[in-house]
Amino acid sequence: MTAEAGPDPLPSWRQGPVKRRLLDFVESVSDPASPAFVPPVERIAVFDNDGTLWSEQPMYVQMAFALERARRLVLERSDLARDPLVVAAAAEDLDTVMGHGMRGLLELVAHTHAGMTSEAFTDLAGTWLRQARHPQLGVPYTRLLYQPMLELLAYLRAREFSNWIVTGGGAEFVRLFAEEAYGIPPDRVIGSTLRVRYRDGDSHSQPTLWRESEVDWINDGDGKPVGVQRAIGRRPIAAFGNSDGDLAMLRWTTAGPGRRLGLLLHHDDAEREVAYDRDSLFGRLDRGLQWAERHGWSLVSLRRDWSQVFGDPLDHG
Amino acid sequence: MTAEAGPDPLPSWRQGPVKRRLLDFVESVSDPASPAFVPPVERIAVFDNDGTLWSEQPMYVQMAFALERARRLVLERSDLARDPLVVAAAAEDLDTVMGHGMRGLLELVAHTHAGMTSEAFTDLAGTWLRQARHPQLGVPYTRLLYQPMLELLAYLRAREFSNWIVTGGGAEFVRLFAEEAYGIPPDRVIGSTLRVRYRDGDSHSQPTLWRESEVDWINDGDGKPVGVQRAIGRRPIAAFGNSDGDLAMLRWTTAGPGRRLGLLLHHDDAEREVAYDRDSLFGRLDRGLQWAERHGWSLVSLRRDWSQVFGDPLDHG
Repeated sequence: MTAEAGPDPLPSWRQGPVKRRLLDFVESVSDPASPAFVPPVERIAVFDNDGTLWSEQPMYVQMAFALERARRLVLERSDLARDPLVVAAAAEDLDTVMGHGMRGLLELVAHTHAGMTSEAFTDLAGTWLRQARHPQLGVPYTRLLYQPMLELLAYLRAREFSNWIVTGGGAEFVRLFAEEAYGIPPDRVIGSTLRVRYRDGDSHSQPTLWRESEVDWINDGDGKPVGVQRAIGRRPIAAFGNSDGDLAMLRWTTAGPGRRLGLLLHHDDAEREVAYDRDSLFGRLDRGLQWAERHGWSLVSLRRDWSQVFGDPLDHG
Repeated sequence: MTAEAGPDPLPSWRQGPVKRRLLDFVESVSDPASPAFVPPVERIAVFDNDGTLWSEQPMYVQMAFALERARRLVLERSDLARDPLVVAAAAEDLDTVMGHGMRGLLELVAHTHAGMTSEAFTDLAGTWLRQARHPQLGVPYTRLLYQPMLELLAYLRAREFSNWIVTGGGAEFVRLFAEEAYGIPPDRVIGSTLRVRYRDGDSHSQPTLWRESEVDWINDGDGKPVGVQRAIGRRPIAAFGNSDGDLAMLRWTTAGPGRRLGLLLHHDDAEREVAYDRDSLFGRLDRGLQWAERHGWSLVSLRRDWSQVFGDPLDHG
């Protein structure tokens, strides 16, 4: 493996079978002399976002934005002050909101992220994201990126992979920070969407893209491979996730011919992050523990496989 | 304009106001010393396909494929043998099919392009495309690319634009040839789609993406700017089309701040191609003739502005 001869491209990954496999996969598909060689246009890597590239505890970051919006909307709009989902969100009753699963979350998004133009949403959510702080750690959410995953993104990019985010979260929300945080441009973010309508009143007013209060696409679970095909038009060769919502994407990716890589993060580090899997309200990993074994995916133990979780100086690892 | 000092990047465009404006736009947005400078990540150009990059006469190429499929399906499937749209298509009764507008066309697509996996569709349509010939000219459809537009695509690419296709046609159909024909990869093709369902029977069978007989997204008219925002997440700075179905895309593009370019092809060359606009069954250009003037878009006369239409040796120009 030529990568191990030079400087380590993955310094925050501890030596072991997971790191060996990662390096071996990337080097062999990018080595023209290897039988597993894949041309650069087909070197497509897809990443879940929440819990895979940044923290999703104590709740999805987008959920924190939705809660703040809900608190405001129950005061401002009498129709939404009677909506059970919005009222639960305003009261931070996450069990009720998440009791409806991803659809409940997206219905809440439909109420709190809509009724405005795309540009107004970008301003509103962008302002919030710059000012908001993680409730326990007191830092901006964009400081809670996983350092080992940032190294992996950079390593893949250096090996001419194209990195894509395939998130259950809202595409426009994740696009707010994906370019700066991960080096992933807006057109490589595939996410859930609201119905958007083009409005062009007359030749004097400006046309707008108007966000309707209606869920258009749920980019989670079985929706992920469909979203990938619609946006990319090619099957990825590597997929990275951390929850049951990522299993279809990993399965679709690794069922293709030739060399493939599937990797699931297992958040088992209570000391440096949060230990959670089967019973978590956000990022539940249940079936995935068996699927990883059945389909030969790497299961990453954060405790064992990562020498640090967040970048300095946040990390205590 | 530095481009005019070197070799002409657009040799098949005749000197005149349209060519001057094209060169001036591209050079000024890509010149760091220009007040109109736009960084490369925002140099996004969107192109309609049928009638803008290749011929759409006597019918959309995808329609020719749908007709062949319809002829087969009325023989093979008793349910479709009674479907008025499929029967009309099998009889090449284009007036009936197009009488329902883009939706009629896409309903026909839903019947003739579905009930199979994404991979099976790619095989089926790809095989057809390699074997099919234009009814009058007797050449493969992929020989009917507009030479001046190929030069424009290459020129924009050289100036670090990203070129996107935004077509009313099916995304998966256009992806069959876009990379080889135009140098545009599958992930930069935005098109109409059928509903696709992810199927994963059990751990032993292979998962598939299954094309349902249901129109999911009509990427035409007001759908074009919405499709652009969903896939790209940024507003383009240049848009190229030829029919009323492209007007919303051109309007959305050129209504943005800073230097913008909108361009509509007017097929007025009966000698070298086909002269058509207001009354055409395919690629109707009616309101666009006024909109171009109102919004300051360039209207390209094929007769006047192009020294050749198709590449040699097809062209008689």
